[in-house]
Amino acid sequence: MRIAAYRRAGNPGVGLVSADGKSVQPFDLPAAELALGALPLIERAARGEALPTPGAAIPLESVQLTAPIPRPRRNIFCVGKNYHAHAKEFAGSGFDSSAMSGGDIPAHPIVFSKVPECVVGPFDAIQMPAASEAIDYEAELAVVIGKGGKGIPKADALKHVWGYTIVNDVTARDWQGRHSQWLLGKSFDTFCPMGPWIVSADECDGTDTGVRLWVNGEKRQDATTKDFIFDIPTLVETISAGITLYPGDIIATGTPVGVGIGFKPPKYLKAGDVVRIEIDGIGVIENPVR
Amino acid sequence: MRIAAYRRAGNPGVGLVSADGKSVQPFDLPAAELALGALPLIERAARGEALPTPGAAIPLESVQLTAPIPRPRRNIFCVGKNYHAHAKEFAGSGFDSSAMSGGDIPAHPIVFSKVPECVVGPFDAIQMPAASEAIDYEAELAVVIGKGGKGIPKADALKHVWGYTIVNDVTARDWQGRHSQWLLGKSFDTFCPMGPWIVSADECDGTDTGVRLWVNGEKRQDATTKDFIFDIPTLVETISAGITLYPGDIIATGTPVGVGIGFKPPKYLKAGDVVRIEIDGIGVIENPVR
Repeated sequence: MRIAAYRRAGNPGVGLVSADGKSVQPFDLPAAELALGALPLIERAARGEALPTPGAAIPLESVQLTAPIPRPRRNIFCVGKNYHAHAKEFAGSGFDSSAMSGGDIPAHPIVFSKVPECVVGPFDAIQMPAASEAIDYEAELAVVIGKGGKGIPKADALKHVWGYTIVNDVTARDWQGRHSQWLLGKSFDTFCPMGPWIVSADECDGTDTGVRLWVNGEKRQDATTKDFIFDIPTLVETISAGITLYPGDIIATGTPVGVGIGFKPPKYLKAGDVVRIEIDGIGVIENPVR
Repeated sequence: MRIAAYRRAGNPGVGLVSADGKSVQPFDLPAAELALGALPLIERAARGEALPTPGAAIPLESVQLTAPIPRPRRNIFCVGKNYHAHAKEFAGSGFDSSAMSGGDIPAHPIVFSKVPECVVGPFDAIQMPAASEAIDYEAELAVVIGKGGKGIPKADALKHVWGYTIVNDVTARDWQGRHSQWLLGKSFDTFCPMGPWIVSADECDGTDTGVRLWVNGEKRQDATTKDFIFDIPTLVETISAGITLYPGDIIATGTPVGVGIGFKPPKYLKAGDVVRIEIDGIGVIENPVR
């Protein structure tokens, strides 16, 4: 199943997207819950409650999709250098230092965060900030946690995954390097396009999922999650070892080879660009840069 | 003024603490707001609204203090290596590598985050995790943002500070090093004791404020914020350059020299220890390790 959040005539809504992606059946929920997107539904599911019965389908083109969780409950967990080919590219960019980010191939997952308020919708604009001109894209498969927990072993990890969505882990490379910890350079306003919806785990397994990204129609990233250094169960086990995970937590699993910093000279984003990400089994997000 | 959050007979409350720290005058607010501690009051103040008139004083000893903001709205911003003497100590510990955390004296603020759910009250226990035995303390002055904003220049920064509180930025040193980005090692459950209340900015200026920490009565940290590498206006300017700040955001300003990792061999915390932090103009928090 696919759950989307949207605005229609200015009001927030949440609905079940049809298999052909052309219509959505709204859930009749209290307004305060609708504003939180798919989060209250995932929390219900985590409590073992059935989803409410959705209403009559309306055309998807009659709504404006927002991020499926427009304002995550806390910062998004993000994994750095989690594809073999990208880890090599990043090391070779001259930007990375092995000590700063765990060597060419990290021995342990590198986990940082993005603030929840940098999330924007699947077709919203990425705003070029005044503070940086070294803005880069990162196509990523994002895990959405269902049932929470702590000390979750790898073998049980996938029972805690409700589903998957797409994020663009937009990054100010100069800030990422200059401040050594990555929070600031990863969290500028509009730096986390997300969507177009959340696909439940039965429709996307994350072990060999294609992840592709284009800038102005030029393909820059094209890989599958088979190239992961740390698979999704390992990430869930690692993060939950000391930190309790909650329903609706989001874990962005890292980006494959082909980021702008990997080119010589780097191919940073500029106003007027359009960034498109497609992930198998989920769909497409496409964000103009302004 | 000092605003505390507490539980009394199992119910959440928020009140104005008397000058002698012996009583508290509860604010009569809706239950949903009371559960958020001082946050709704700071949001009101940020909107230019007057605080409600508090009720009759009750003895402070009749309540159980919680963190003044028991569940911050998003991850806490934390600054690494922000005291000159601590930056040298950290570099000398053999734990640090200059590339990983910006050199002995960072040229730019190092900013990472702690998840909001690791916050516990000013006298609550720090739980020794199963996942690490290298648990360290860090006494820190924390800024509480009042009026939000973006692109805040240094000259205006203090207009955006509502007040100050104390945090212990508890850290799993092995995780901090192994995962290179610090989020995981800083965010284990119970790793952010906070309180005992928030003191408004007129009662604590942060430019020469004494910060002291004891473990089992042995003084380990004793410095003033005069030793800051980056002062509070610089931190607010840096964080808000690309990220919109919101009322109630918390910025932990870094810890002075004297952390456990600075000793040879390191003096890590163990079950049974008691960690006490005192900051001038604010008060004391004291947390047993279990």
